[in-house]
Amino acid sequence: MMDDHIFYDCATAPSPRRARIFIAEKGLEVPTIQIDLRSGEQLGEAFRAVNPRCTVPALKLPDGTVLGDNASIARYLEEIRPKPALMGITPVEKARIAEWNAIAEFDGLLAMAETVRNSLKGMKGRALTGPKNYDQIPALAERGRARVAHFFETADRRLNEAPYLGGDHYSIADITAFVVVEFAAWVKLSPDESQSALIEWHQALAARPSAKV
Amino acid sequence: MMDDHIFYDCATAPSPRRARIFIAEKGLEVPTIQIDLRSGEQLGEAFRAVNPRCTVPALKLPDGTVLGDNASIARYLEEIRPKPALMGITPVEKARIAEWNAIAEFDGLLAMAETVRNSLKGMKGRALTGPKNYDQIPALAERGRARVAHFFETADRRLNEAPYLGGDHYSIADITAFVVVEFAAWVKLSPDESQSALIEWHQALAARPSAKV
Repeated sequence: MMDDHIFYDCATAPSPRRARIFIAEKGLEVPTIQIDLRSGEQLGEAFRAVNPRCTVPALKLPDGTVLGDNASIARYLEEIRPKPALMGITPVEKARIAEWNAIAEFDGLLAMAETVRNSLKGMKGRALTGPKNYDQIPALAERGRARVAHFFETADRRLNEAPYLGGDHYSIADITAFVVVEFAAWVKLSPDESQSALIEWHQALAARPSAKV
Repeated sequence: MMDDHIFYDCATAPSPRRARIFIAEKGLEVPTIQIDLRSGEQLGEAFRAVNPRCTVPALKLPDGTVLGDNASIARYLEEIRPKPALMGITPVEKARIAEWNAIAEFDGLLAMAETVRNSLKGMKGRALTGPKNYDQIPALAERGRARVAHFFETADRRLNEAPYLGGDHYSIADITAFVVVEFAAWVKLSPDESQSALIEWHQALAARPSAKV
């Protein structure tokens, strides 16, 4: 359907999954190339020439322009395919969704990335994504777990007052937070059983076709 | 000019400065309340009732809605006051600006915050903003300095190929990166003298009226 674009993905990684869900919710299909993050393909010459940031997701446009992260890919797709809106309709709704997406990114996804990248043996020297190597900081892994638990509290409280994080409609903020919950299972972190709003929201999102792509 | 809004600011802090510059570049004036971060006013009952995230910037709208971060404030203002555009015009430009704003936030501003909040004595137990206390992690301060230096390299390289980070026009990405450079001076980090594109860009931005508000 978008045969003139190329999506650079890694089927097992959380970050590109955000873009993959976004694309599916827009009803789009994009020719996809898998980048093998486990073997370090993202750091090799070939992919570095595509995205010098050495990260997925990336999206190549028909004119050769490459968008190198979730922020740019989502914004571009929202512009060229406005429906269904995943970033809001009214100014206040757009703002609220941007805020909850930022909360989910910083307090949720970043905290999860810190947990995983600073503890797994296979991530030694790769505590941050990108072309530079940074040593693991074990204290950061520990702090990350605490932050994720705090994020679950925050999200559960919000989902007690609104059906979706951004308000009345499913949005990019839900996509980001959904990926946090799924990612957290890697290190056996999950919402507390008392957080029923968060748990029900997660179940509903997991049942959407976009969660399967 | 926007007398029915209230802007919650802290004149000495980097994060609200981003919103302050954005507001000035839009040609807006908003009644402003200063929150004294040094005395911990953001954690007190009064401000917590305004923004439970206990952070500035925040913007109260005429109906009482509070936007609690830069992401939401910028999006809202861009919607209600589209000119001058600070978040792009075409889909690709909007995407590119979103990407560079995210790079400046994560690789620049967050790295600077990690440097400062994990090293200053006055920040003990306050390694992260928000209602929860987190201990300082000294290794994170050290890593932050290395990351900021890397961000300066990245920004300089980009500014050798385009006049602004997002491309041909001044944008929110420049605002964020400008605040990084200014913030870095707190801990005596500055662009290397060989990074002339970055240095010239910074001088030009510092000369804009918005840098003085």
